[in-house]
Amino acid sequence: MNPCSSVLLTDLYQLTMLQAYVEQEMTETAVFELFVRRLPPHRSFLMAAGLEQVLAFLEQMQVSQAELAWLESTGRFHSTLLRYLEGLRFTGDVQAMQEGTIFFPHEPMLRIVAPLPLAQLIETRIINLLNFQTMIASKAARSVLVAGETPLIDFGLRRAHGAEAGLFAARASYLAGFAGTATVLAGMEYDIPIYGTMAHSFVQAHTDETAAFEHFALAQPENVILLIDTYDTEAAAHKIVNLAPSLKQQGILVKEVRLDSGDLADHAKKVRRILDEGGLPHTQILASGNLDEYQLQRLIASDAPIDSFAIGTALTTSADAPSLDCAYKLQEYAGRPCRKRSEGKATWPGRKQVYRQYRQDGRFDHDIVTTVQAPETGDPLLHPVMTGGRRLATAPQLTEMRERAAAQLALLPDLLRTLETDRPYDVQIAQSLQDLARTVDQCVP
Amino acid sequence: MNPCSSVLLTDLYQLTMLQAYVEQEMTETAVFELFVRRLPPHRSFLMAAGLEQVLAFLEQMQVSQAELAWLESTGRFHSTLLRYLEGLRFTGDVQAMQEGTIFFPHEPMLRIVAPLPLAQLIETRIINLLNFQTMIASKAARSVLVAGETPLIDFGLRRAHGAEAGLFAARASYLAGFAGTATVLAGMEYDIPIYGTMAHSFVQAHTDETAAFEHFALAQPENVILLIDTYDTEAAAHKIVNLAPSLKQQGILVKEVRLDSGDLADHAKKVRRILDEGGLPHTQILASGNLDEYQLQRLIASDAPIDSFAIGTALTTSADAPSLDCAYKLQEYAGRPCRKRSEGKATWPGRKQVYRQYRQDGRFDHDIVTTVQAPETGDPLLHPVMTGGRRLATAPQLTEMRERAAAQLALLPDLLRTLETDRPYDVQIAQSLQDLARTVDQCVP
Repeated sequence: MNPCSSVLLTDLYQLTMLQAYVEQEMTETAVFELFVRRLPPHRSFLMAAGLEQVLAFLEQMQVSQAELAWLESTGRFHSTLLRYLEGLRFTGDVQAMQEGTIFFPHEPMLRIVAPLPLAQLIETRIINLLNFQTMIASKAARSVLVAGETPLIDFGLRRAHGAEAGLFAARASYLAGFAGTATVLAGMEYDIPIYGTMAHSFVQAHTDETAAFEHFALAQPENVILLIDTYDTEAAAHKIVNLAPSLKQQGILVKEVRLDSGDLADHAKKVRRILDEGGLPHTQILASGNLDEYQLQRLIASDAPIDSFAIGTALTTSADAPSLDCAYKLQEYAGRPCRKRSEGKATWPGRKQVYRQYRQDGRFDHDIVTTVQAPETGDPLLHPVMTGGRRLATAPQLTEMRERAAAQLALLPDLLRTLETDRPYDVQIAQSLQDLARTVDQCVP
Repeated sequence: MNPCSSVLLTDLYQLTMLQAYVEQEMTETAVFELFVRRLPPHRSFLMAAGLEQVLAFLEQMQVSQAELAWLESTGRFHSTLLRYLEGLRFTGDVQAMQEGTIFFPHEPMLRIVAPLPLAQLIETRIINLLNFQTMIASKAARSVLVAGETPLIDFGLRRAHGAEAGLFAARASYLAGFAGTATVLAGMEYDIPIYGTMAHSFVQAHTDETAAFEHFALAQPENVILLIDTYDTEAAAHKIVNLAPSLKQQGILVKEVRLDSGDLADHAKKVRRILDEGGLPHTQILASGNLDEYQLQRLIASDAPIDSFAIGTALTTSADAPSLDCAYKLQEYAGRPCRKRSEGKATWPGRKQVYRQYRQDGRFDHDIVTTVQAPETGDPLLHPVMTGGRRLATAPQLTEMRERAAAQLALLPDLLRTLETDRPYDVQIAQSLQDLARTVDQCVP
């Protein structure tokens, strides 16, 4: 079984609630919206990602016979619920922000409109999918803003939280502007450019570092990227200079060297000089090793002659903010708007739309969150993507989403383009929505 | 396809290195060891977890025809490599610490002995599997130490990093001593006890909070757990007291109430009094809402009358330390010990064993890391688990590992049982290993 597509990838409370809903025949239309309550530390914007996986999950969702049998064996569930789950398919509507869209707290990024039990059952996996990819795209975008035209590569599969996290991190970071990933399966699954170098073990497995470089070059003549910090970085650079003429006679060029430890700026400057003086001005330098957007900024500011960067753990775990404070909340049931008023966790009720308004120079000025009944001027950010369980369009290409992300980043106000800002973006709650919240609060005891 | 079991869940550099190894016929026996370089912040020990998934991956690994075809289509790989990958199976040996074992930096938790290309190919997924579950078990164990006999439940699937992370987090936290999880599929896959309550949406979908409580009780008469903070916590507790007699007439008891926001200690005390005075002394209180081991310690120290705790995001993302500084390093090739000397990242060479020595009272005293040729006194922590690609024993039950973990936690010195310590555990590097490192350094240029 592929656990990633199971409907039982959910919290038990969804099933206990479903049992009550089914028995009480509470199956009228519910409206849930997913939004982020507040920005994580060190973030000034979010980038929507993961919608494609949500839609695929909704299209494919069904409870298998083995799962039904197991549910029955637990003795927890009545036959009413088991009958409801058997043959259940997603038949609802979805409105959502397109992947690559930049958004902010309090703005719904996705709305599900479906019979209450169905809309409830899918909560856990929808949050699970959108929280992760949105978090990674938002993290990756920060490095992209810092790096400008310098290519960035995802090297973080090994410390991503499992297989799916590694694949989704490759996807979300590519969407946000990374050049590619080292994760081979992400290349196969999502057609993302893949990048690879060599490991220290390759050098260690040889008794001679130069022999290691030569063997690698012969095996990958089109893509010679040599790791030079296993023993002594500058000494290894000299070895490459000495090796290069004989490789060149065989038509092989040293495309790149990789630095992975120590003071990267200092090593890069020394290695650049050795390569240049050794007749290898076209050999590029790739840097890696515990990098994040702050290290990147520091290295770029120091004018280190580094041609590309690989980012691993900090990216794929979103190390400084490994979750979003996101929630999937019931905003309307059977035509009646509602909201939660728990301390510190109150939400805005009803179906909402987000309108973005722009400055004269085209940059984002502010957003307005309003009820769908009271539209504002500006660009609406939520669009219908699924009706009655069917997609409204074929899935967009990842490259298309990547172009949207780049266009969005280009329109960010300067204040939000730096790694830290103390001025949050202006998200306004329209009067119509404030009025609705007051009305809802008066109705509920 | 189930992406979780693909051999292409690896870094591209493994394949580029493999191409060179195969072409140079460097297929002699390699020894790789996986260890953690240093403790993450706020950790004083680690708990080994994830071995079962590593062994399952090694038993099942093979490159599919579709994967071979895709690899060929990239134009990056020679037919020598593609032929090597076709029909490749894991034929090596594995020695490892059993799951639930407590260990420390510099101590290998796993050793792979296999032909060099094979041992290299599996690096990425092995780290990916062991890093995550070990990190989660180590995080969960902290809450277990704080909570003592009070049950803890994993509520963190929604913000875990994808499907696999959610499932593995449920497994690793149960192994470390949690009572169970809300993740239904983890119940089915790993036979972990599952727990469930209700969501705010359940209350909101009703126009009346008492009606919501009653409907839930009728649907789950054996397991009535009511969430009481949707609007006003104490008012909801009074509603339950008023509802209880009519439920009791139908043979239904209110087993538990759940608090999920606000000052949990204050609410728990007030709610306890309302329940006790209302004739519901046996109704228990479950607390949740952004909890971690520090909140747990504070709530327990405040004598809050809370009977169980649910922990979500902080657990399943290991929020304060979302990765381990772990590495899988070549320690020997073709009978020749080796090590990496990169700045700040040097490793100890050769095949190693860890011996644990105990104090008079049975607690851990110190560990010694030594070469396998020079055994020390004490308990050896690494054991053979796979030979020639076959397991040496049937997979142990998760409950068995859980008992081992509990026994290990009971033997921790008091200094390591607190949430913060400034005295690291004593891990000694045996003279034999220091001598070997010197010898290796003299041989390599």
